[in-house]
Parts: sequence; structure tokens; C-alpha cells
Amino acid sequence: MNLKIRSLSLIAIVASAAALSTGTQAQQAPKPEQLIKWRQSAYQVVGWNSGRIKASLDGTYNKEEVARAAGVIAALANAGLGSLFVPGTESGKGWHETAAKPELFQDGKRVGEAAANFSKEANELARVAVVGDLATIKDQYGKLSRTCKACHDDFRAKE
Amino acid sequence: MNLKIRSLSLIAIVASAAALSTGTQAQQAPKPEQLIKWRQSAYQVVGWNSGRIKASLDGTYNKEEVARAAGVIAALANAGLGSLFVPGTESGKGWHETAAKPELFQDGKRVGEAAANFSKEANELARVAVVGDLATIKDQYGKLSRTCKACHDDFRAKE
Repeated sequence: MNLKIRSLSLIAIVASAAALSTGTQAQQAPKPEQLIKWRQSAYQVVGWNSGRIKASLDGTYNKEEVARAAGVIAALANAGLGSLFVPGTESGKGWHETAAKPELFQDGKRVGEAAANFSKEANELARVAVVGDLATIKDQYGKLSRTCKACHDDFRAKE
Repeated sequence: MNLKIRSLSLIAIVASAAALSTGTQAQQAPKPEQLIKWRQSAYQVVGWNSGRIKASLDGTYNKEEVARAAGVIAALANAGLGSLFVPGTESGKGWHETAAKPELFQDGKRVGEAAANFSKEANELARVAVVGDLATIKDQYGKLSRTCKACHDDFRAKE
């Protein structure tokens, strides 16, 4: 899928998440604190699995370990994390105060591109983790890591 | 896959995670607090996605929303969460004090069965979310929810 299509599908996901959230008002929409807790949890899980992949690639390579971890990251990259960054969650505390920068809620086009890059490289890593050789997997892990870093640089406040 | 094979593969995953953790001592094995934080995050992400599925099944059904959410739960069910419940993490604080009961670290056979049930029903939900009709998906979501509840009843302290 090219970037444009992925951006469009991201928009569709965010739109459908918004529609869903409207549809579930009656069942109580999640509070901002809950949404922030979920997104902080999701990125913790990405970090856990990224660390597992790095440890395996740098140490004793375990194909199944890497494939399972890459599968988790790809599933989260495809999950529609954008639905956890809705208006009203620009500040506030989940597990801790949000580290999201204001730009994350303002520059939709650039956020969409960053999210699309993350999904693209995460899906490719999940694919090559199963069918690729070690050099290809290492190369792809590097590509994925750079999408993480780029997004952190742009949209996550320094600790 | 039958339960026995799944239990064996769970053991293999835990064993390989243990081997990995040994292999990465040089890179600093994650501290108990980090492991507890990761597992608390993983179950938050499961809860987020379970809630999305329930909201969609009870409200305006969105096939893509349900499939994506079911994909996240299945990826986590296959991720080897057992590697986050290693000796040394029986107590301690991640985001909050662990709610794991002592039995979780003592009754390996029953924990293995509970984990295998969770994986089995999560994988089946991810499958029917894509290919099944709404009644089948609702039925399978019920089966998955019962594996969550059974495990919570046995191995998670009441709040």
C-alpha cells in the first residue's frame, strides 16, 4: 500500500473510531485519563517487543521470539492508535502526565504520515521476521526503529 | 492445535524467553518493576481492545474495527506473556502494585492451561472476525471473555 492510501485508511480508521465513539456515548465514552492510560500502555508494549527483538538480533537469534514480538508491534501499528489521541486528551494523566506535544493534535497531515510510516515498516518487519533471513530482518528492524525515533523527536516531549 | 500441544508450545516459549533472558544478561536483564509494568500494560491493551469489540458488537457493528482489535488481542495472546511472570516478580510495583496472586507462580500446569485457553479463543476470534458472520463473532467473543474471567478469578487478586 502506498503512503497516500495508508494515510487515507488512517483517516478512515480515525473517522470510524470517532463514529464509534459517538455511537457508544450511551455506554459511556472512555474518559481522557483512560485514553491516555491506554496509549501509554500501547507504547510500553511496543517498547517491550522492540526490546525483545533487539536482544534477539544482537544476541542469540531466536526466529520465533522475533516473529511473535514483531507480530505484536504490527498489530498495534494497525490498531488505530489515533483513536487514543482525540481532542480532550492534549493534556492529562494516564499512568503519568502525557508526553504528547501539542503538535500531535495540530499537524494532522504530518502525524498521519508518521503513523503510516510506522505501520508500513512494522508490517514489513512482521513479514520478513517470518520469511526473511537475519540480515534482512536486522535491516528492517533498523527501518522500523527510525520511524519510532522520528515520531518521538517530533511529537513526544523530552523526559 | 489441541491444548496439549499449545501447553507444550507455551512451555517452549517460556523456556526460550528464559534462555533469551540468560543470553542478554550482558545487556542488562529487565528489572522486575519493568516486567510488571510491561505485563500491566499488556493487559490494559487487551482491555482496551476487548472494550472496542464489545462496543462495536453491542452498538453499530464495524467489521474492520473488530478485526483490528481482535488482531491485537491475538498477537498479545501469542506473544509469550509468561515471560513477564518470571520468578522475582511475585510482588512489586510496575504502574501499580502487582495484582497477581501467589498461585500464578506456583501452579504452572493450571496457568499453562489458562494461557492456552486464552490463546486458543483469541486466535479463533481473530479468525472469525475476518471471515465469520456477526452471530459467530459474538459467540466467539463470549468464549474469549470467559477465558479472561476464569483466569482473573483464579490468578488476579480482587481490587
